[in-house]
Amino acid sequence: MIFLTRRATFSASHYYWNEAWSAEKNQQVFGRCANRNGHGHNYTLEVTVAGEPDAVTGFVVDLKWLKDVMEREVLAAYDHRHLNLETPEFNNANPTTENIAIAAWKRLEPAINGASDAGAGGAKLKRIRVYETPEIFAEYRGEA
Amino acid sequence: MIFLTRRATFSASHYYWNEAWSAEKNQQVFGRCANRNGHGHNYTLEVTVAGEPDAVTGFVVDLKWLKDVMEREVLAAYDHRHLNLETPEFNNANPTTENIAIAAWKRLEPAINGASDAGAGGAKLKRIRVYETPEIFAEYRGEA
Amino acid sequence: MIFLTRRATFSASHYYWNEAWSAEKNQQVFGRCANRNGHGHNYTLEVTVAGEPDAVTGFVVDLKWLKDVMEREVLAAYDHRHLNLETPEFNNANPTTENIAIAAWKRLEPAINGASDAGAGGAKLKRIRVYETPEIFAEYRGEA
Amino acid sequence: MIFLTRRATFSASHYYWNEAWSAEKNQQVFGRCANRNGHGHNYTLEVTVAGEPDAVTGFVVDLKWLKDVMEREVLAAYDHRHLNLETPEFNNANPTTENIAIAAWKRLEPAINGASDAGAGGAKLKRIRVYETPEIFAEYRGEA
Amino acid sequence: MIFLTRRATFSASHYYWNEAWSAEKNQQVFGRCANRNGHGHNYTLEVTVAGEPDAVTGFVVDLKWLKDVMEREVLAAYDHRHLNLETPEFNNANPTTENIAIAAWKRLEPAINGASDAGAGGAKLKRIRVYETPEIFAEYRGEA
Amino acid sequence: MIFLTRRATFSASHYYWNEAWSAEKNQQVFGRCANRNGHGHNYTLEVTVAGEPDAVTGFVVDLKWLKDVMEREVLAAYDHRHLNLETPEFNNANPTTENIAIAAWKRLEPAINGASDAGAGGAKLKRIRVYETPEIFAEYRGEA
Repeated sequence: MIFLTRRATFSASHYYWNEAWSAEKNQQVFGRCANRNGHGHNYTLEVTVAGEPDAVTGFVVDLKWLKDVMEREVLAAYDHRHLNLETPEFNNANPTTENIAIAAWKRLEPAINGASDAGAGGAKLKRIRVYETPEIFAEYRGEA
Repeated sequence: MIFLTRRATFSASHYYWNEAWSAEKNQQVFGRCANRNGHGHNYTLEVTVAGEPDAVTGFVVDLKWLKDVMEREVLAAYDHRHLNLETPEFNNANPTTENIAIAAWKRLEPAINGASDAGAGGAKLKRIRVYETPEIFAEYRGEA
Repeated sequence: MIFLTRRATFSASHYYWNEAWSAEKNQQVFGRCANRNGHGHNYTLEVTVAGEPDAVTGFVVDLKWLKDVMEREVLAAYDHRHLNLETPEFNNANPTTENIAIAAWKRLEPAINGASDAGAGGAKLKRIRVYETPEIFAEYRGEA
Repeated sequence: MIFLTRRATFSASHYYWNEAWSAEKNQQVFGRCANRNGHGHNYTLEVTVAGEPDAVTGFVVDLKWLKDVMEREVLAAYDHRHLNLETPEFNNANPTTENIAIAAWKRLEPAINGASDAGAGGAKLKRIRVYETPEIFAEYRGEA
Repeated sequence: MIFLTRRATFSASHYYWNEAWSAEKNQQVFGRCANRNGHGHNYTLEVTVAGEPDAVTGFVVDLKWLKDVMEREVLAAYDHRHLNLETPEFNNANPTTENIAIAAWKRLEPAINGASDAGAGGAKLKRIRVYETPEIFAEYRGEA
Repeated sequence: MIFLTRRATFSASHYYWNEAWSAEKNQQVFGRCANRNGHGHNYTLEVTVAGEPDAVTGFVVDLKWLKDVMEREVLAAYDHRHLNLETPEFNNANPTTENIAIAAWKRLEPAINGASDAGAGGAKLKRIRVYETPEIFAEYRGEA
């Protein structure tokens, strides 16, 4: 089994806020991230699929196909967007690096694992990594 | 003469918009950057000063002093901020990478070139670079 | 379960030496690393914790809390230090990348896994990576 | 158990082609990679071994020994080479990133796991990663 | 005046060879680069233009326009190509990093300095950098 | 004219100290860098030469020749060394990034500008950059 990974980047805004708390409590817990005007990052999305290389092509998946899936399922929704305001999964949940990793998994898992395209091979999604900065990243493997 | 450079990063939101134009014209010229909700970046600020190393310390400037100046003059205003909404220089000008480089120069030049602190040596600001992403950066040298 | 990682850097000196060996044997086994004056590196410490994101904050741990733990438990002891001469765990053991990874685990494991701070959530230490250079790194998962 | 990793780079040419297909079919499946003149990459090879640090040296393996093995077993065959034309494992198989990872494993596994050199310790090969670009990499762990 | 830089990457094959020399002389001067099967690199092309930011847009050039110019003038000819065999400028000259930098300048200078597109502003090409690897790069400023 | 640059890395220890000052004054000015046990860095040395590409080879200099010069003149003296204790130029001067850049220039300038080797072409040393960390670097151009 081979693990094949492709990276992409997106630029987005976000803030952290809990409507049930006072402004003071939000400020205390979330610090500068509680600024409601938002701030932003160049995120890196790292998608790992696993499978056997095809005997003829040598591909686990067609990397052009995987790029298209990542752009259609994740980047189209997140890139140059304000995550809190423009993506439904973060209307009621903070777009932390952890939560973005889980949300990207939910967006990609059906598109990859359920794909019948030739490009998909029989590969399965194994791991999502999201880097908020080069110093901070979250990883989700679809497991409890 | 030695050129000494220090880097720092800040995370901020921005958008591009011209109030004098229609939404259609803004969209046509600025594309996805015209999204008024904002999007964001991990910016890298690169500050270069020039001078002679002190005969005793070997320093052109005290790098701790330079770090403090960068944090006080630029990062305190830009980091975890929405540049259009929260910094006066971008209330009526788009926070493009080019304009951020010029604005950072204007913030840093008096603080560095006019400093009488021991840490400043006689060093002068020579160059500002701002990276919006690793693929795009603007440089300003204080020259027409 | 989410794996959340934070990186930090520290600059330290070290050498490799075995007191029970002759200088010739030390030189033969450790090469240039046997120089008793020491040489140094910019190390990168990568700390991975695992847990469930909090339903309200979206945090596995508060990253500011994790940063403080890393600084207090590891960087305060290693940064700008000579590891052989100034840290007790390397008085009788070479500060190889492997041994630094194990030592950082021992320093961080009680501080993270035993923490009762709000910032700690219920997250547990899962992995330590130490990069001596971008080309060489050691990883320890607390397992035999 | 410690996982110790060393990276090296090599520059090579390759193309993707299936002799059983028409030129049109090759072009359709492999796109620009079907150019028979070849194109190339700066590949990064990442080799991870696992073992216990030696009580005296603190080494899982002698990193100089590992470097020599990587150069002798992989880089001598791949660096500054056209993979399709000059390496037997790719005479009848496309040198995709996936296949290069498997081939590097086959070259390194006997040299590492079967080594009786002092430098080898009792370490075993655990993982191969091959980066074709910073955005694309394949990983093989010797497991089906 | 602002210097604005955009980077792009391309993957290409090349070799070094002088038809007027014997195989032995070619081998002696060019070493492993004399392999006529070719080897390859992930090149980075860095294009710097200079000008004044537009008072309305804040742009020296429209970065989307610059990206298109770089792709049309350079990447379309170099990416996934064998430089010696497929680009006329290297039919009789070695595609060294130095010569690629000059050739990219010749391709880009008329397209940028002579452009009348709105996106071009009045910006002029100032500098080309070509990285063959992260360790080796050549820079050309259009000056003798 | 082409500017051709090659990078190399070295790992070294250093401290900052002025014998004419009290320990307190040294501590106050140099902070953690005043630790006499030393600390260390992975330095990057970046050497830029300028000249015309040779009409036959396409080389400004033979990069293998330049690598050998850098290793012989600088890395042999600095790599895996304690700069204060083992290099004469820092016996009475702090090995700051600024001073290392000047010292590397003095070591390389005669070896490059005075070379009569075929590999040297007529290229001249134009610029030295020394990175102490990715965030801090000094540049010297041989000019007052």
